[in-house]
Amino acid sequence: MNKNKEFNEYRSRMNQRLLDSENKIIKRIFNLDTNAFLDGALNSNTKELIGLTTSLVLKCDDCVAYHLGKCYELHFSTEEILEALSVATLVGGTIVIPHLRKAIEYWDELNSDV
Amino acid sequence: MNKNKEFNEYRSRMNQRLLDSENKIIKRIFNLDTNAFLDGALNSNTKELIGLTTSLVLKCDDCVAYHLGKCYELHFSTEEILEALSVATLVGGTIVIPHLRKAIEYWDELNSDV
Amino acid sequence: MNKNKEFNEYRSRMNQRLLDSENKIIKRIFNLDTNAFLDGALNSNTKELIGLTTSLVLKCDDCVAYHLGKCYELHFSTEEILEALSVATLVGGTIVIPHLRKAIEYWDELNSDV
Amino acid sequence: MNKNKEFNEYRSRMNQRLLDSENKIIKRIFNLDTNAFLDGALNSNTKELIGLTTSLVLKCDDCVAYHLGKCYELHFSTEEILEALSVATLVGGTIVIPHLRKAIEYWDELNSDV
Amino acid sequence: MNKNKEFNEYRSRMNQRLLDSENKIIKRIFNLDTNAFLDGALNSNTKELIGLTTSLVLKCDDCVAYHLGKCYELHFSTEEILEALSVATLVGGTIVIPHLRKAIEYWDELNSDV
Amino acid sequence: MNKNKEFNEYRSRMNQRLLDSENKIIKRIFNLDTNAFLDGALNSNTKELIGLTTSLVLKCDDCVAYHLGKCYELHFSTEEILEALSVATLVGGTIVIPHLRKAIEYWDELNSDV
Repeated sequence: MNKNKEFNEYRSRMNQRLLDSENKIIKRIFNLDTNAFLDGALNSNTKELIGLTTSLVLKCDDCVAYHLGKCYELHFSTEEILEALSVATLVGGTIVIPHLRKAIEYWDELNSDV
Repeated sequence: MNKNKEFNEYRSRMNQRLLDSENKIIKRIFNLDTNAFLDGALNSNTKELIGLTTSLVLKCDDCVAYHLGKCYELHFSTEEILEALSVATLVGGTIVIPHLRKAIEYWDELNSDV
Repeated sequence: MNKNKEFNEYRSRMNQRLLDSENKIIKRIFNLDTNAFLDGALNSNTKELIGLTTSLVLKCDDCVAYHLGKCYELHFSTEEILEALSVATLVGGTIVIPHLRKAIEYWDELNSDV
Repeated sequence: MNKNKEFNEYRSRMNQRLLDSENKIIKRIFNLDTNAFLDGALNSNTKELIGLTTSLVLKCDDCVAYHLGKCYELHFSTEEILEALSVATLVGGTIVIPHLRKAIEYWDELNSDV
Repeated sequence: MNKNKEFNEYRSRMNQRLLDSENKIIKRIFNLDTNAFLDGALNSNTKELIGLTTSLVLKCDDCVAYHLGKCYELHFSTEEILEALSVATLVGGTIVIPHLRKAIEYWDELNSDV
Repeated sequence: MNKNKEFNEYRSRMNQRLLDSENKIIKRIFNLDTNAFLDGALNSNTKELIGLTTSLVLKCDDCVAYHLGKCYELHFSTEEILEALSVATLVGGTIVIPHLRKAIEYWDELNSDV
C-alpha cells in the first residue's frame, strides 16, 4: 500500500471512530468542513487552494495531503500547485519548507499513481 | 484621516525606513513579496485570496488589511470576501473570530470610502 | 465607558454585522461556539476554563477577555483564574506573559465594577 | 511493545538525558512542569484537562499523549475526554483534526491495555 | 510620556500585580525568565538576540520591545539588530513584517531618547 | 544509514526536486536562506543560534536538525547548544519539550559519529 493510500485509509478509519462517538461538536465540525468547500460565491477550486495554503502555513502535513488529494481530483497542474505552495511559503517563512518538501513528495506520488 | 488611510500611511513610512536601512535580506524579502502576487500560473486574484486567508489563519491583522486593500482594488464582492474569510475561520478555529471582526470592519470601511 | 464595556459593545456590534451577512459557514461556527460551552459530559465551568486557557496559549486577547467575562459570571475566584492562567503560561511559554498581563488587568476591572 | 509504552520509554530516557546535562533552566522547567499540575486552587483533574486541551490547540501530539495518560490514571470517561477535545478542536480549527485523530487513537489504546 | 516609557511603566505595574498574587507558578516563571538571560555557556548578548528573534517569530510585540530595550543597554548597533530581525523575518515569513515595522520603530525611539 | 544521514539525503533530494521545478519564488527563498546565514554585521555562529532557536520555538524538528548540523560544523559545545535550546524552551513553553528531546537526540547522534 503506498503512502497516500495508507494515509487515506487511516484518515477514514479514525474519522469514522470519531463520528461513531456521538459527540455533537465533532460531528458538526466535520459536517461543516465538508460543506465549506462546495461551490458558493467562490468556486470549489479556489476554496481548495485556500484550504491547501492555510494548511501549509499552519504546518499541518495531513491537512495539506488531504487538500492535495482534492486538488488532484480537480485537475490542477503542478505549476499551479507549486505557485500556491510558494506563496504560502513566502507568507509562512522558511519554517514552512520541510512541509513544502512533504507536500511536493505527496503531490508527485498522486501524479505517478496509474 | 480614516483608519485604512492611517494604516497605509504608517505602513509606507515604516517600509521605507526598513528599505533605507540597506539590509539586503529585508530588501529581498520585500521585493519577493511584491513579485509573488503577480499573475503567473495562478492569476493575481487567486493569489490575493491566498494572501488574505493565510494572513487570517496566522492572525495577522495588518497583513489581512493589506490584502483586503488589494482585493478591493481587484473588485471582489463582499460575498466572495466573506466566503474566503469563512473558510479560513473554519480552518483556523474560533480563535480567528476577533480577527474576522476586524477584517470585516476594515472591508466595510474600504467600501464606504467615496 | 470602561474597557470591558467597550470591548463587549464592539464585539456584539461586529458579530451582528457578520451574522447579518447570511454567510452560512460563519453563522454555523457562531452557533457551534455557543453550544460547545453548555453543560454536557463536562460542566460549563470546566469548559470555560478550557476556553480561557486555550485562548491564552493561542495569544488571543479578545478571546481571553470573552472567557474571563463568562468565568466572572460563573463566580470563579481570582485564585482559580490565576492558577488556570499560570498553567497555560507554563505550557505556552514566556511569550504568553504580555497576554497574561492583559488578562489579569481585564479580570481586575471586571471585579472592580459595581 | 505497544505504541504508548514505546512513547513513554522514549520520553523517560530523553528526559533523563536532558536532566543529566545539568542545565539549570531545563531542570527548573521540568520541575515546574511537575508542580503545576498538582492540586491547588484548582484540582489536578481540571488542570490535566487544561494541559490536554492547550496541548491539542498547540498541535503537540506528544504533549497530548502525556496528558491523556494522566487523564487515564485519573479515570476520566471517554465522553469527558471527547468533550474536552471537541471544545479544543472548535477553538483551534479543523487544522487540529489530524491531532484529534491521533489523540483518540492513543486514548483507545490506553483503554484497551489490560 | 513616550511610547517606550509608557510600555515599561505598564509592564512593571502589571508584573508587580502578578507577583503580588502569590501564585507560585507565575513567580517561578518570572524568576526563571530573569536568570535565563544571564551570562552562562553563552554570554548575555547572544541570549538577548535569541530572546529578541524568538519573540519576533512568535509575533509578540511586547516581548520584542522588552528585548530591544535590553539590546539597547548592551550597545548593539542598528546594523546588528536589523540583521538579527531580518533572519527572524526570513524564518517566520512575511507575516512577521508588521512586527518588524513596530520593532524598528521602537528601536529608533530608544535611540532618539537623550 | 543513520538518522541524520537519512534526513540529509531526503532533504537534499526534495530540495533538488523543488529547485528543478523552475518556480521562481521557491528558488529565491532557497537562495535567500543560504545568504542570510553568512557572516555580516553578526557572525554566522550567532546567526546559526538564531536559526536554531527560532526553529525550536516554531516547533520545526527538521529545521532544528538542519541548524544543529550547521552548529556541529561550527564546533559549538554541548553546553552552548543546551543553553540556547533552554532559553528557547522557556520562551516557547513546555509545549517545546518534545522538540527539545528530539533536538538533543539528534545532537548526540551528530557527536557520536566518527
